[in-house]
Amino acid sequence: MSEIQQALETIFSADSAVYRQRGFQRRIGFGTRPALIHIDLANAWTRPGNAFSCDGMDTIIPGVQRLNDAARAKGIPIAYTTTAYAVTDGPNTDMGLWHRKIPVEVLQLGTDAVAIDERIAPEPDEHVIVKKHASAFFGTHLANMLRAGDVDTVIITGVTMAGCVRHTTEDAIGYGFRPIVVRECVGDRVAGVVEWNLFDIDAKFGDVEPLETVLDYLAAVEPRTEAAASETLRS
Amino acid sequence: MSEIQQALETIFSADSAVYRQRGFQRRIGFGTRPALIHIDLANAWTRPGNAFSCDGMDTIIPGVQRLNDAARAKGIPIAYTTTAYAVTDGPNTDMGLWHRKIPVEVLQLGTDAVAIDERIAPEPDEHVIVKKHASAFFGTHLANMLRAGDVDTVIITGVTMAGCVRHTTEDAIGYGFRPIVVRECVGDRVAGVVEWNLFDIDAKFGDVEPLETVLDYLAAVEPRTEAAASETLRS
Amino acid sequence: MSEIQQALETIFSADSAVYRQRGFQRRIGFGTRPALIHIDLANAWTRPGNAFSCDGMDTIIPGVQRLNDAARAKGIPIAYTTTAYAVTDGPNTDMGLWHRKIPVEVLQLGTDAVAIDERIAPEPDEHVIVKKHASAFFGTHLANMLRAGDVDTVIITGVTMAGCVRHTTEDAIGYGFRPIVVRECVGDRVAGVVEWNLFDIDAKFGDVEPLETVLDYLAAVEPRTEAAASETLRS
Amino acid sequence: MSEIQQALETIFSADSAVYRQRGFQRRIGFGTRPALIHIDLANAWTRPGNAFSCDGMDTIIPGVQRLNDAARAKGIPIAYTTTAYAVTDGPNTDMGLWHRKIPVEVLQLGTDAVAIDERIAPEPDEHVIVKKHASAFFGTHLANMLRAGDVDTVIITGVTMAGCVRHTTEDAIGYGFRPIVVRECVGDRVAGVVEWNLFDIDAKFGDVEPLETVLDYLAAVEPRTEAAASETLRS
Repeated sequence: MSEIQQALETIFSADSAVYRQRGFQRRIGFGTRPALIHIDLANAWTRPGNAFSCDGMDTIIPGVQRLNDAARAKGIPIAYTTTAYAVTDGPNTDMGLWHRKIPVEVLQLGTDAVAIDERIAPEPDEHVIVKKHASAFFGTHLANMLRAGDVDTVIITGVTMAGCVRHTTEDAIGYGFRPIVVRECVGDRVAGVVEWNLFDIDAKFGDVEPLETVLDYLAAVEPRTEAAASETLRS
Repeated sequence: MSEIQQALETIFSADSAVYRQRGFQRRIGFGTRPALIHIDLANAWTRPGNAFSCDGMDTIIPGVQRLNDAARAKGIPIAYTTTAYAVTDGPNTDMGLWHRKIPVEVLQLGTDAVAIDERIAPEPDEHVIVKKHASAFFGTHLANMLRAGDVDTVIITGVTMAGCVRHTTEDAIGYGFRPIVVRECVGDRVAGVVEWNLFDIDAKFGDVEPLETVLDYLAAVEPRTEAAASETLRS
Repeated sequence: MSEIQQALETIFSADSAVYRQRGFQRRIGFGTRPALIHIDLANAWTRPGNAFSCDGMDTIIPGVQRLNDAARAKGIPIAYTTTAYAVTDGPNTDMGLWHRKIPVEVLQLGTDAVAIDERIAPEPDEHVIVKKHASAFFGTHLANMLRAGDVDTVIITGVTMAGCVRHTTEDAIGYGFRPIVVRECVGDRVAGVVEWNLFDIDAKFGDVEPLETVLDYLAAVEPRTEAAASETLRS
Repeated sequence: MSEIQQALETIFSADSAVYRQRGFQRRIGFGTRPALIHIDLANAWTRPGNAFSCDGMDTIIPGVQRLNDAARAKGIPIAYTTTAYAVTDGPNTDMGLWHRKIPVEVLQLGTDAVAIDERIAPEPDEHVIVKKHASAFFGTHLANMLRAGDVDTVIITGVTMAGCVRHTTEDAIGYGFRPIVVRECVGDRVAGVVEWNLFDIDAKFGDVEPLETVLDYLAAVEPRTEAAASETLRS
């Protein structure tokens, strides 16, 4: 364990003592109708050489592949996000104010940089949500689509932990979905931020779970059928 | 005036007497920083032969052209919407529940049917919002983009009056934008619905104004500059 | 049938022919986990003498009482809305821009006018959502609460049909809930608007159903238990 | 400086080198029409003895008092939030899923625990937003009210940094408001989380500024008048 991680573990240990004594860090648990959400696993983030490039893809990509295999075997919905902009200069930009903090002007819609990494390519009935903000839910149809599809649990992977994954998780529980963040399948580009954001999330917003636990869950969950997604008492 | 319109005018006249006596039907007025929003003026709606085809394009299209010319001369932002879906069958559709009411399964993302009519083609810095629901704001980044661009007024055109234009207008005032609906530039595909929805909107949600009034307004409004959209006291 | 209604029926009949031929006016159907939403059945709307007073309470109130009895027998969640404002003058109002169209300045938070009519008083575990805009969902936690409670269908009653009931229904289907509007339990304050808004809704946004059909449905639906609302595969 | 803070400063310094080299950590700057948002400065958080009690009130409360004095002198809008629930047990709760992570069941609507601390009591035209989730914007009318009031900048204070303040800031920039977090006026209840969340925010979502800088800004900003908030070109 690196020195940084040791220092953080010391803080987390002290903080956890307070949280537990006060009734935080509860388990939200898995529901019965999950979806997978892969945050910004597009080339700008998964490949080297971009301002947005992240570390850890040697672990993240194979983990996401295993999750996708397990989900596809059960008909579980999978959604990917990417962050991309149609107009990256001038007053009429769709970047909002975000380029005033981070270099989103390099994320041009329609370029290879914002396409999902082909190692985890979406299948035809899987969705790529083009978002403009950090959260996968913010200014998108994701929450509405998941509700219409009767999803109650979101399995979250991707990058970055300090940005889009964190905001997505906070929104997910707010919208009424159980957020499960897959520990080995999230990453970032600077030291420490994965650890402290996972710590905050597990204390307050969603359960951080090991990949193997999530795979066991997906193996056990009922297959999703069209009937299940659209059942009606009478219609 | 047709018999239908006469019957409706009789109702509107009686209703207006009640509304006025009770303090409804006020004028919201124009603000100082407008944007144009053209609802679903894509081929499925503007051309014949589609389940979604609408009437009145001989008036609507030239009106929108005049509005665009006026707006472009002032640097006023223009946004178009289209309604389109990536997955139009199976349980993992992005149609939500809407195909259970109307035939949105014909609106396939990437087809010519859902492309904006070339007679009113967007320019490079104008936005095409792909929406999944009726309102231009619902599950999209439109409200956020307009707020970041300091817009306070939305000039609304398009189709259909009984569906997407109505819901967009209701949302617009809710989000805090002044909605102005251009009387000659909205349409539908069945009789009467333009009239009664304009009546409801003008009573409660936005001002219905003639095209010439809106053009006069656009001629008078201050040109929009990048500075105006991004002014800061200090930064 | 009044002359107005006859004229409207003639239009609806012609319009329905177009809609059916084009594949509109489909049935969305009832789901399995409903909630009741009563829109603005507070004294300003249900009692005479207010700018917002509506007609038809002799039918609406008993209908809502029967729906509530049926829902309470099954543990089905019930939510009421009211529209009320903390600050009704000056620049810092929470009325947004709505007072520029309608007299919402009379709807002062905390007054009897905005309290739910005592003939249909909420029970302790039923919710009164204070909204600022037309839709029950707009700027409120309603959609999130319903999603967390695993609701898939919303039974909608209340007033006004041309305002808050319509906008609520449009939003409901957008959020992925099946909207069922109870024909005898919605009203307004001017002639014609109930009819044409029900017509538009049934064509595009939700099913308009007679009270008896909805009561039959509530009699048949599975009782809701805490377990049902919070079931997990493992937790 | 404590050992913990020293360890964190070492990480922040290394991370900042990466961020700067890649174009992150930009300044968003102050706009011209600010509002103040005080997050959860209610007794459950500001006083000892509650599961939600936070540290640092000796600095936070006087800082907020100074900000309020400066804002009131200019007619700048002030909004407070509290987190409170009408139904804290049973399946029909408005807690959503949040009580499955943290002890929100102690935050009963209408109790003294969720009332704003009287040392910073709201004035009659200031708003107390009752929220159900972490962000001040989530499931509330706040963004709509601010937009209607022509606000472009939000000055954020309060608790907790790892929960509600962070989520509020992420949402604020998404909605198109410039977020300014006041360094001395935010707090939490466990060690380290203020530091790392301020670090993440300043890198990506909003500017973290010292109290004195924000007070200088408020002293320089144009007074807000009713005319300013409602100006129209013609109406």
